[in-house]
Amino acid sequence: MLVNGSAHTTLCYDAEQRGVVIIDQTQLPHRFEQLVLHDLSDFCQAITTMQVRGAPLIGITAAFGVALALASDPSEASLQQACQQLLATRPTAINLHWALQRVQQAVAGLPPAQRAPAALAIAEQLRRDDITTCSAIGDQGLAVLKTLLQQKPADQQVLNVLTHCNAGWLATIDWGTALAPIYKAQQAGLAIHVWVDETRPRNQGASLTAWELARQGIDHTVIADNTGGHLMQHGLVDVCLVGSDRTTAQGDVCNKIGTYLKALAAQDNQVPFYVALPVSTIDWDISDGIRHIPIEQRSSRELTHISGIDASGELCEVKLIDDSAAANYAFDVTPARLVSGLITEYGCFAANPDSLHTLRQLLR
Amino acid sequence: MLVNGSAHTTLCYDAEQRGVVIIDQTQLPHRFEQLVLHDLSDFCQAITTMQVRGAPLIGITAAFGVALALASDPSEASLQQACQQLLATRPTAINLHWALQRVQQAVAGLPPAQRAPAALAIAEQLRRDDITTCSAIGDQGLAVLKTLLQQKPADQQVLNVLTHCNAGWLATIDWGTALAPIYKAQQAGLAIHVWVDETRPRNQGASLTAWELARQGIDHTVIADNTGGHLMQHGLVDVCLVGSDRTTAQGDVCNKIGTYLKALAAQDNQVPFYVALPVSTIDWDISDGIRHIPIEQRSSRELTHISGIDASGELCEVKLIDDSAAANYAFDVTPARLVSGLITEYGCFAANPDSLHTLRQLLR
Repeated sequence: MLVNGSAHTTLCYDAEQRGVVIIDQTQLPHRFEQLVLHDLSDFCQAITTMQVRGAPLIGITAAFGVALALASDPSEASLQQACQQLLATRPTAINLHWALQRVQQAVAGLPPAQRAPAALAIAEQLRRDDITTCSAIGDQGLAVLKTLLQQKPADQQVLNVLTHCNAGWLATIDWGTALAPIYKAQQAGLAIHVWVDETRPRNQGASLTAWELARQGIDHTVIADNTGGHLMQHGLVDVCLVGSDRTTAQGDVCNKIGTYLKALAAQDNQVPFYVALPVSTIDWDISDGIRHIPIEQRSSRELTHISGIDASGELCEVKLIDDSAAANYAFDVTPARLVSGLITEYGCFAANPDSLHTLRQLLR
Repeated sequence: MLVNGSAHTTLCYDAEQRGVVIIDQTQLPHRFEQLVLHDLSDFCQAITTMQVRGAPLIGITAAFGVALALASDPSEASLQQACQQLLATRPTAINLHWALQRVQQAVAGLPPAQRAPAALAIAEQLRRDDITTCSAIGDQGLAVLKTLLQQKPADQQVLNVLTHCNAGWLATIDWGTALAPIYKAQQAGLAIHVWVDETRPRNQGASLTAWELARQGIDHTVIADNTGGHLMQHGLVDVCLVGSDRTTAQGDVCNKIGTYLKALAAQDNQVPFYVALPVSTIDWDISDGIRHIPIEQRSSRELTHISGIDASGELCEVKLIDDSAAANYAFDVTPARLVSGLITEYGCFAANPDSLHTLRQLLR
């Protein structure tokens, strides 16, 4: 997608530098900086500190991490260590498991010399697949948005979409998940306005989603996370569209903390609530998301401190809270009963066990 | 209540300085600074810029504002101008109307020379009444908290209260509304832990409620506004307790933006949701809060910029958002159906027209 008029993706392998080039997302929206990851510790740090984030992207980043670890040491011990360390970086997103499993399967039984190239090939394939997948999610979601727009009165031909966190191209390789239908809608000439939840405490909405939409020239307004309910009560939201870090076999959706609150408001005001996700975020082993998905707790510093640009134009961290403890739960679970539909690369599915069983059969 | 070990109230008249001493709440939690308001423009600015805020406190501040305006010019034109300008400072809280009406009634028909003293006397009375009222709300709320604590298993004898925004002593003269029962519980030796919603965009929870509770030595944890739903899903909240800026005759509650989302989560998880309020916040002329309460929209700068303490210990404002529009709705309305009870100085009333009619009869 566009940055300063040029097309970019979030991550690509650079053979010359023998490294993976990423956008340092912790510097956005203030600085557009790219970094090169070389060894396992670079990859683990990039995921832990959220230089790369978003369920699809961290999966692919981890796959490249294993490939580069195997390039310097192709032993079984090296493979195991790389997978273990990468898996430990973030507990909630299931794509990390999924991507690491794909690499492990690809290199299993291969002689050491063939391991690194095989792992790199599978990582490259996951990367290409992600672009195809997200584009397909965009097309499927576009159909949903078109239908909703057609249902609006003829004099209200702007579709107001509310999104939470960042499930845009910065969370994937290209297109995004929840934002893919919006980018496709722009291409199709639909009039769209996006309410962008700030998404405390890391402000991925204000810092990443707003930045993406501004770069792409899509009309949007940043709001405090507290605002969505009021907007829905007053008919100012036509649809909620969010991503998922892990989706259960019964259709529960684990996404950025606060998603559940928006889903409750959507239900209370008869606003459709859609979740866009690649099928790789589905954890077929879990049904009850509230009971069984581990919720990452991150540093309280993400709540007590914040960075921005000071009067002299410098990036500056300030302390917001002095003497108080702070808790930072990163995700919550939205029960399937609050979800209008799961928009995947294979179509839109109802959030219930039967419908997801049908999808699973399709994948076999 | 306590600041650095000494007892303080938010506002008092200083005859020697012929002014009203307030705490500049825009400097909290970083600086404890007091200011003296002298003329009408001081009072209007203090309310508009939220140096004083909270429905009860802005009502009393406005009453003193009229008294001091009349002290310099006791004419009818001066009275009208003062009331009009003060009424225009903030549109949502009904106490502003109520307090100004009380002063107007008190000075109506008096000869000019008696107007300022009469207005000052009524402002002083409103101030004293507020302390009595909030203390009574605290006692009524304490009974509710005691009952909830008794319902907990014997091995879980800490009551977890979630609050949104600041309805503490800083929002009134002393005690507060939603926090009054918590202070009374502390005095009564009950074990309480408070989840403090940060309350974006002005962070009244993180900056004021957390500051109050820390000064008073009450156990608390600041959380992002997104977090309450997750905590309630996991049984970590026993009761929600918030304030109100305007309450309708059918029991709808207008409070800081985001309150409605917490009320939805409380209902979805069978967590009681109580609102603590002086009866002066009840607008008997309105039933449907969503349709009829004007919601203040404040500057987008409150969302795009934030202040904190930088590395050198200085208060520093930083810009969080660059190129995007931002919308800042200050309040939302929680429908009566989501409210477990309205805790007033006259007792706890159900949030429905019949119950509030009973309360109204009591007041006549």
